[in-house]
Amino acid sequence: MQDTKHKKMKAISQEFTAKFQYDVFFSQNIFQIDNPLLRDLLSSENTEGKRKALFVLDNGVHEAHPDLQKQIVAYCFAHSDVIDLRTVPILVPGGEKSKNDYSLVDYLLKEIDEFGICRHSYIVGIGGGAVLDMVGFAATIAHRGIRHIRIPTTVLAQNDSGVGVKNSINFFNKKNFLGTFSPPQAVINDVSFLSTLHPRDWRAGISEALKVALIKDEGFFREIQANVSNYEQRESHAMESLIYKCAVLHLNHISGGGDPFERDSARPLDFGHWAAHKLEQMSNYRLRHGEAVAIGIALDVTYAHLSGLLPEDAWKEIIVLIEELGFRLYVPELSQNIDNGSDSDSILAGIEEFREHLGGQLSITLIDRIGHGLEVHEIDRRLMTQSIHTLKAHHESLMALEE
Amino acid sequence: MQDTKHKKMKAISQEFTAKFQYDVFFSQNIFQIDNPLLRDLLSSENTEGKRKALFVLDNGVHEAHPDLQKQIVAYCFAHSDVIDLRTVPILVPGGEKSKNDYSLVDYLLKEIDEFGICRHSYIVGIGGGAVLDMVGFAATIAHRGIRHIRIPTTVLAQNDSGVGVKNSINFFNKKNFLGTFSPPQAVINDVSFLSTLHPRDWRAGISEALKVALIKDEGFFREIQANVSNYEQRESHAMESLIYKCAVLHLNHISGGGDPFERDSARPLDFGHWAAHKLEQMSNYRLRHGEAVAIGIALDVTYAHLSGLLPEDAWKEIIVLIEELGFRLYVPELSQNIDNGSDSDSILAGIEEFREHLGGQLSITLIDRIGHGLEVHEIDRRLMTQSIHTLKAHHESLMALEE
Repeated sequence: MQDTKHKKMKAISQEFTAKFQYDVFFSQNIFQIDNPLLRDLLSSENTEGKRKALFVLDNGVHEAHPDLQKQIVAYCFAHSDVIDLRTVPILVPGGEKSKNDYSLVDYLLKEIDEFGICRHSYIVGIGGGAVLDMVGFAATIAHRGIRHIRIPTTVLAQNDSGVGVKNSINFFNKKNFLGTFSPPQAVINDVSFLSTLHPRDWRAGISEALKVALIKDEGFFREIQANVSNYEQRESHAMESLIYKCAVLHLNHISGGGDPFERDSARPLDFGHWAAHKLEQMSNYRLRHGEAVAIGIALDVTYAHLSGLLPEDAWKEIIVLIEELGFRLYVPELSQNIDNGSDSDSILAGIEEFREHLGGQLSITLIDRIGHGLEVHEIDRRLMTQSIHTLKAHHESLMALEE
Repeated sequence: MQDTKHKKMKAISQEFTAKFQYDVFFSQNIFQIDNPLLRDLLSSENTEGKRKALFVLDNGVHEAHPDLQKQIVAYCFAHSDVIDLRTVPILVPGGEKSKNDYSLVDYLLKEIDEFGICRHSYIVGIGGGAVLDMVGFAATIAHRGIRHIRIPTTVLAQNDSGVGVKNSINFFNKKNFLGTFSPPQAVINDVSFLSTLHPRDWRAGISEALKVALIKDEGFFREIQANVSNYEQRESHAMESLIYKCAVLHLNHISGGGDPFERDSARPLDFGHWAAHKLEQMSNYRLRHGEAVAIGIALDVTYAHLSGLLPEDAWKEIIVLIEELGFRLYVPELSQNIDNGSDSDSILAGIEEFREHLGGQLSITLIDRIGHGLEVHEIDRRLMTQSIHTLKAHHESLMALEE
């Protein structure tokens, strides 16, 4: 009798789908009072009452645009029938620093509490990818998720991290140890922020476009090849096109890949990233993320070539393009301790760290032609070391020519 | 030219759906070595290799089952081809305390880091609803979400919070200020934990069943009415049936309500909860959550009756049932400061706090008949005060009879 009952009551299967939708807008001067974009966004969901808003501003953006805080206040004042600005835009340090410092998350949570920001209010982050990651994390854990709007201000954030669904901070000295998958309410790419970027930041974002072109779209690779001098001359239409195409490829990957919240182990968009993450850390963040990604790509295409996957012509085309874009192919950290016989304290430790972060089986993306990525589940340490020596030798020849 | 370009590039609409699936199992003695449930769960997704697992155990459960830690270790040892037990089950304090103490989250994150728990590992929480909420929060923010399994050990957790999709802790002295919506990998309701429950905990979970019956299912209300003495005599079949039906109604609400992650303001499952949350806090958590919910239901059905929504017969039936189940209808905190003319420091402040937590418009669930809830967006303070006086008077008559 009891057994029957238990059999009958054995399990309830719970199943549901959740729909996620957000727009990535392209605009300019979005805090000019007559630009209706942000106003319309905040009033779109509810006809009744004002929406509370909290703005968090990357200090680097603040320094390049000292009037921005005032503009934001003026914009909200002009649209105060819709926007209830709770306090002046909050400044936070820019760059990876903002992700390394948990006290910033704590600080934002305190502001969220103090200013009565609720699940139907808005938190607007303005800055580089690191600041948006950190603000997104605070927003998505407060009240189990406050609506957040991302306004990325660098090439890298506009074409890559800023348009996606991930939020995170570093913890225990580990990249992205804490975080959530939680889509933003909207993303606004404002081209006017790009003009004040430092040349390194202007360039660094190109490497994510190169990455996605290499694994998904040969035509896009050809466009990047054809526009090297336009990027160099900071021609904004060329860069806007690059950002738009890269964002589309990135967004399509999330929506069409069948794994928006990364439950599986394959992570094609992390092409070139196992080495990049480790290099950033080994260089104590002297290298920008995009600069490290360029080296990571150079390393993995060299490995793909030496392992017989990628034909020589394609490999050379890629290496030449990375150089022409102004990136380094090699930094000393790349060969640090690699001939020791153990992975520890060398770039090769990044392979295991990458596997650990994703969990499960190792999955590294390589390419077998321009525009086509594929996954491998093993890395031959000897061949990877040879790839590093190949890049180093090529780099030294180039340096000798420059002297 | 530029305008045309900006118009063309105006927006990319990102849209995707994510599918969520988990099973709620009903079993008993799940750590007996020959019970394959947990073993099967951990090996179901990947044929290769062992899965790392971290167990977190409610200290209250540990005290009632002093051999449980050893049983878990033995179970994992017996199934070590599948389960890689990283450390002995971690003990954490039980009850609301565990949600008030952020250092416990920090402690679990440190253990996750130290024992190399990755996104494909498992964190298994065993305990009451508060412990499961806290463990779930740590699990869902580490590595952007580690698989977690919930093993609820109280009536309340087995029929309500333990089977849902919410994780949270209290922060800034505010209930559930931090949290995530993130479904578990599985839930296991093990009936053997119920036999050692303190009578207050055995009873307290019934109030969530009463709640969901009142808003959704008259038949279930009749079942509860018919089984009062069975619950009183701790007849386990009656309780298993109550838990099963309550869990089904709760799960159907999440999957069929169209709003699994609570983006809108309506929250029918929070019937009776605005007052319950405030009473828990005002009583400094002397009241169990379920006991506070019973009073919250008594208050809101009285209000529904006095405002003309709920007929007198139904109201009386409900009040009588709450009493018969052994709950109090009234505690002194309910009338504390209510005749002051201001809401502050009185139960009435809970109305605004409830609105703030959900954000947007106030939305309170009432009922107009047994088995049918509806939303109202305004509460008449005068009538609510009168409802409190009505409950107080009834309570005092009952007390007088007992003397």
